[in-house]
Amino acid sequence: MTDYDVIIVGGGPGGYAAARRLGQAGRRVLLADADGLGGSSLYNGTVPMASLLESAGLYHRLRAAADRGITTTGLSVDWPAMQAAKQRTVATLAAGLKATLQRHRVTVVQETAEFLEPGRVLVGDRQLTCDDVIIATGSVPNLPPLPGVVANPRVLAPAGLLELDQPPERLIVLGADVTGLECANLFALLGSQVTVIDSLAEITNLIDQTIAAELRPALRPVRFRLNCQIDHLDGDTVYFRAADGSPASASGDAIVLSLGRQPRFDGWGAETSGLDITCRGVTVDDCLRTNLPGVWAVGDVTGHSLFAHAALRSGEVAAALIVDPASRRRGEVMRWSTIPYTFFGQPQAAGVGLTEQACAAQGFDQIVTGVAPLALAGRFIDEAGLSPSGLAKVIVDQSTRQVLGIHLLGPAATEVIGGLAAVVEMEMTVDELGQIVFPNQTVAEGLREACWAVQRRLAAATVTLDR
Amino acid sequence: MTDYDVIIVGGGPGGYAAARRLGQAGRRVLLADADGLGGSSLYNGTVPMASLLESAGLYHRLRAAADRGITTTGLSVDWPAMQAAKQRTVATLAAGLKATLQRHRVTVVQETAEFLEPGRVLVGDRQLTCDDVIIATGSVPNLPPLPGVVANPRVLAPAGLLELDQPPERLIVLGADVTGLECANLFALLGSQVTVIDSLAEITNLIDQTIAAELRPALRPVRFRLNCQIDHLDGDTVYFRAADGSPASASGDAIVLSLGRQPRFDGWGAETSGLDITCRGVTVDDCLRTNLPGVWAVGDVTGHSLFAHAALRSGEVAAALIVDPASRRRGEVMRWSTIPYTFFGQPQAAGVGLTEQACAAQGFDQIVTGVAPLALAGRFIDEAGLSPSGLAKVIVDQSTRQVLGIHLLGPAATEVIGGLAAVVEMEMTVDELGQIVFPNQTVAEGLREACWAVQRRLAAATVTLDR
Repeated sequence: MTDYDVIIVGGGPGGYAAARRLGQAGRRVLLADADGLGGSSLYNGTVPMASLLESAGLYHRLRAAADRGITTTGLSVDWPAMQAAKQRTVATLAAGLKATLQRHRVTVVQETAEFLEPGRVLVGDRQLTCDDVIIATGSVPNLPPLPGVVANPRVLAPAGLLELDQPPERLIVLGADVTGLECANLFALLGSQVTVIDSLAEITNLIDQTIAAELRPALRPVRFRLNCQIDHLDGDTVYFRAADGSPASASGDAIVLSLGRQPRFDGWGAETSGLDITCRGVTVDDCLRTNLPGVWAVGDVTGHSLFAHAALRSGEVAAALIVDPASRRRGEVMRWSTIPYTFFGQPQAAGVGLTEQACAAQGFDQIVTGVAPLALAGRFIDEAGLSPSGLAKVIVDQSTRQVLGIHLLGPAATEVIGGLAAVVEMEMTVDELGQIVFPNQTVAEGLREACWAVQRRLAAATVTLDR
Repeated sequence: MTDYDVIIVGGGPGGYAAARRLGQAGRRVLLADADGLGGSSLYNGTVPMASLLESAGLYHRLRAAADRGITTTGLSVDWPAMQAAKQRTVATLAAGLKATLQRHRVTVVQETAEFLEPGRVLVGDRQLTCDDVIIATGSVPNLPPLPGVVANPRVLAPAGLLELDQPPERLIVLGADVTGLECANLFALLGSQVTVIDSLAEITNLIDQTIAAELRPALRPVRFRLNCQIDHLDGDTVYFRAADGSPASASGDAIVLSLGRQPRFDGWGAETSGLDITCRGVTVDDCLRTNLPGVWAVGDVTGHSLFAHAALRSGEVAAALIVDPASRRRGEVMRWSTIPYTFFGQPQAAGVGLTEQACAAQGFDQIVTGVAPLALAGRFIDEAGLSPSGLAKVIVDQSTRQVLGIHLLGPAATEVIGGLAAVVEMEMTVDELGQIVFPNQTVAEGLREACWAVQRRLAAATVTLDR
């Protein structure tokens, strides 16, 4: 008999979601992570960022609260208290996670784990055997080979930025991906002077282009330097080539590198594993199976998505298929295309399904899009003010009328998108979605307007074809 | 030729939604309402209430903001400024509405309108002809025959309460329906002493009983006197029989009557119309057709729902069917069962589909429910604190595993429920819903836990049956 049914290498969302489901199903599970349970999303990622952004968002709303009949004589930011609130949230979630896995009798060890071969893992200094191995080792921030980065005390990863003793007066963010934008938004809300530099022509390509173009100016006073090529760093200064080709520079008390992440390949035996690995990550099929029998990989290390909820779901799918391979027929399969993206800033943005640029990149031009401003919803005006940014966008397949993508910018977007993932996953048509009753005056109701816009365009297209 | 294709009697959500769609389809439409465009939801209902609750909620959050690192001094409520903010929202929406109907060439007249017979309406003093008539006359607050109510200056309808010069120090709310609870919540947040009196054993039956039982204590310091029979009013005092049968009384600077609403039958010719009318409202089929040819009724006057979004949707359905009777086959039919309910207070509550008590009332006991606390979501802790009320509940048909109802208590519940209406409407199973990926750490993610709880109970039930 093996030592365990399943050994999980890595304690982030992919690993702990799998552990929970396997433990619940009565499997003997060992989960090993030298950094403990939770992964970078809990300690360095989504959770602390969302907590700090919640505080900063409150501060932001307060400054305009007099307009809503709530007056204060003195308003200030207490950064240590913000940090303490963040720490409370992290600690509460960490305790909850630990209790959940204990309840399901998962053995959790804070030790290194190295994959040896199918059925064998070195945990600490013990060789353990098992039926299945799940690789859930996550990802690490990219460190570009830029001169002046190494040993520069001004240079930080996003996680380091969140731990500073005080907000930097001037902040430079290299990289306009979601994490970089959340860093920029957070400190701009707190009063820092923030500059974001990226080689892209628009902020992150992960977000639908219409939403991105509306989000960028909404992040003012953040200053964006796009189409720029970073040359090198020297102390507090970043030297780069500006969009017009001229040399330029920007200085900051902190310089944060948010230039993407790569799968974590070191420390768990990736090199000698025999696993099919590309620079993107460990290759898996839509059941999260690797090329080796009884070896699965989930989460960031697969290179499919960096969102914690994608990792969670992939851990669940792998666990379901380990427990019962037939559960694939019940839908337990990884559908990367219906993983929502989220931006937890002010304003929030979120989407699910295809972006317009993804359609174009796939050569798929038989689409119709509808965009509606949210400014006609009472709750939007109440929460965001009279002239803020807010959009709902729907992307529809012209021939089948199926909803391919839904994208939102505005209050509660990250909360609303979950239910809308169901809309995309169920392959609803724009006509079906347009008939769904959203509560009156909610921000989400704007989505109906976007659907109607699509329907009108489809009707107009039909008339044209008929002629 | 008739004067208009369609004449709409009443300018609330049901009326204006129909007018918009008919105008968009090129129909010649006249909409008449002596009170102007917007209906009671815009001027006296959802919109002003949601606006004031938004301000009050901000005040509430501010008082605990130091915990989140945002410190304030001299925090106070400026009621006139709250009223002004409310007025801005109402005015913005009213202007938007007017512009929308103008764009679609709808003739809007601020005049009385009386239905004479199919195809004939008296608008002001002109007899006009048309092909179709839509009755959208809304509802009015119930005025119970309680001694001491008439000509009592302390007694107000909810709409009157929202217009007071200053918040009452002591407020009595008669009736624990959604509107009564929103009144109670609003003024309790602003510091009023609030007592709610109702004959029911629990607050509004419209909300799922599990959610209601959790919401009630969350509305503290509101004092609830349930199971009480109101006897009479005298000046500022309400005399009633308490739950234990003993006589009791409560006094307030304002006494608001929130004892439901009834269809508006006066002033538009209801009595002589020949329409099939019960005390519940104008009888309609699921296409909003009345018993008379070419006469439709939408919104509150049908007695089906008092939510503005129900009125809106019924207006849309009637319009779609007038334009093209075949659109019924494309789903343009009124599905009252998937109209969400909403409570815009602090905390928010919302639900869609069947409540557990509705299942019981219909003798439908083959259900399995799952309830999950939201306290494991990071954003929930950030927004609501460490020990607040928050639940997600799912009701599932035991044999088909279809999701019959979804109910939420917590931040953004009213925003999230729209997408979940699609889940209920598409008749998703609990297994399908459990596989949907909600963003990690969002409040809405708690719904997945509720689904898993149902799945475990269903699995346990299957095991029991197998034995």
